[in-house]
Amino acid sequence: MEAVNLDAMLARFTEHWSPKKIAQINDYDVRIVKVQGEFTWHRHTDTDEFFLVLDGQLTIQMRDRSVVLAPRELFVVPRGAEHCPRADVETAVLLLEPGRVVNTGDAGGELTAEVGELA
Amino acid sequence: MEAVNLDAMLARFTEHWSPKKIAQINDYDVRIVKVQGEFTWHRHTDTDEFFLVLDGQLTIQMRDRSVVLAPRELFVVPRGAEHCPRADVETAVLLLEPGRVVNTGDAGGELTAEVGELA
Repeated sequence: MEAVNLDAMLARFTEHWSPKKIAQINDYDVRIVKVQGEFTWHRHTDTDEFFLVLDGQLTIQMRDRSVVLAPRELFVVPRGAEHCPRADVETAVLLLEPGRVVNTGDAGGELTAEVGELA
Repeated sequence: MEAVNLDAMLARFTEHWSPKKIAQINDYDVRIVKVQGEFTWHRHTDTDEFFLVLDGQLTIQMRDRSVVLAPRELFVVPRGAEHCPRADVETAVLLLEPGRVVNTGDAGGELTAEVGELA
């Protein structure tokens, strides 16, 4: 592989809530996603999920609290924890999770997205 | 856990080549490290290793080529590939690798560091 420039990768798509794979570490994917508005409540019963905000601001709503992330801030949603990301402005996020993970977890529905590959 | 601010974490240590764990995703560690100068040639025979530059500039020397990473650029060193990171200026890097990984891989020696925990 070559070096991956996050800004060059972010410039290659515009859609929201549709993660793009940009690198792989063993059986984990590094993905980037642009988000705006509110996603759907869901959980991943078999994995933690890592969020690092690159641009914008992300609120990760959980049932008992919310976490607000600015650029260069990260959070790990523990496996099994229901969460619903929300962004009031367009926000770019780097995700790390096992390659099998579906964005909507146990919720499914129309927001379920195939993971595109940019690398 | 709470939100983790990378700049707040980076402000908590000064030493070079000594990774600090700041979060965990399943059995993977998210670590940050400050580096300057040249590390040691080594390889990780059983895992890929992820580098994301936060500040500065990192050159990852490999036997057949080198990759130069600016902030917001990332690279995955494939398992088994000999590499030797180098930074001409102080550089901050986010690493992702299985929790068991030792920084010097198969090389050992005096640069081998215990992974501190900042979280």
